[in-house]
Amino acid sequence: MGDGVVLLDFWPSPFGMRVRIALKEKGIDYESKEENLNNKSPLLLKMNPVHKQIPVLIHNGNPICESLIIVQYIDEVWKDKAPLLPSDPYERAHARFWADYVDKKIYSTGRLVWATKGEVQETAKKELIECFKLLETDWFYAFETLGNFSMIHECPKLVGWAKRCIQKKSVSSSLPDQYKVYDFILELKKKLELD
Amino acid sequence: MGDGVVLLDFWPSPFGMRVRIALKEKGIDYESKEENLNNKSPLLLKMNPVHKQIPVLIHNGNPICESLIIVQYIDEVWKDKAPLLPSDPYERAHARFWADYVDKKIYSTGRLVWATKGEVQETAKKELIECFKLLETDWFYAFETLGNFSMIHECPKLVGWAKRCIQKKSVSSSLPDQYKVYDFILELKKKLELD
Repeated sequence: MGDGVVLLDFWPSPFGMRVRIALKEKGIDYESKEENLNNKSPLLLKMNPVHKQIPVLIHNGNPICESLIIVQYIDEVWKDKAPLLPSDPYERAHARFWADYVDKKIYSTGRLVWATKGEVQETAKKELIECFKLLETDWFYAFETLGNFSMIHECPKLVGWAKRCIQKKSVSSSLPDQYKVYDFILELKKKLELD
Repeated sequence: MGDGVVLLDFWPSPFGMRVRIALKEKGIDYESKEENLNNKSPLLLKMNPVHKQIPVLIHNGNPICESLIIVQYIDEVWKDKAPLLPSDPYERAHARFWADYVDKKIYSTGRLVWATKGEVQETAKKELIECFKLLETDWFYAFETLGNFSMIHECPKLVGWAKRCIQKKSVSSSLPDQYKVYDFILELKKKLELD
């Protein structure tokens, strides 16, 4: 492991997508290594021994873990181009608040929408719809289809924001196809014996 | 709400303690408002409508929520004195990683140690002992007593670090008495009918 930038990633991961977008916004060349989460590589276990999770950014041989921390690291190291956080401290706190909110709310609630049924799913669905901040546009289709609701109907402004995001090449080239994510979730449900 | 700095706080909260220490390190005068979490003030509900949780820092009338985000805000606004994060991006990422680790691991595992019994408690105890990073030194006594283990025996280096921290006035003056925290937890157990 010498110079350069390596990303340990897994294609449907919204946390991986965040880092991909940040790297592309900054125009950083990097090598992507796809992980098999059922059989994690020795490199992943070595680079993130605490959480053993992707994404991990390896820069000049040093690992940086946790997607939001990676994004801030990228912003601080490559600071001459495409700032990812606002310069004003209050606006920065605001941006950090919503990123933190996505981590605390969307991931866990979203999982309940695709992994449960009946009343639990209904409650999670209502909660997810109330979570009006979503970064993972390509996960919309899986949430809508498995949760049986319409994003454009429930959150038209959010969908508008997502559409503006996806027009950026750094975003569109970082996100997988929505139907591929949906198929992945179906496979996962089967594997977890949720059907 | 005009100029100045107001902190909405609750004395046993380790998240509140973080902010208190940061404010004192920077030498910032502030007004502390103690919240009753069973009867939250209209100010708290207005300033943190999303999570409705303390701590909230109100600076010139603007609310900042989530303790780690508040600490970074304080560091960025009052940047001339007592830097709270290292200047090197990699070291900053490292500091953020461990702060995030405390949030993700210590709080939830620590709750299991004081709120459960038997096998669940034993498992949580083992996990907590493995979590070798703890900021909340005054919670040590409650964890040790209710979990029946010795911090100095299990993690002598961590206890050494905590002892060095507590020698700083900004820390010692921000943390409540450890026996008071223990009594608070006992009351809480009773209220939650955990005994």
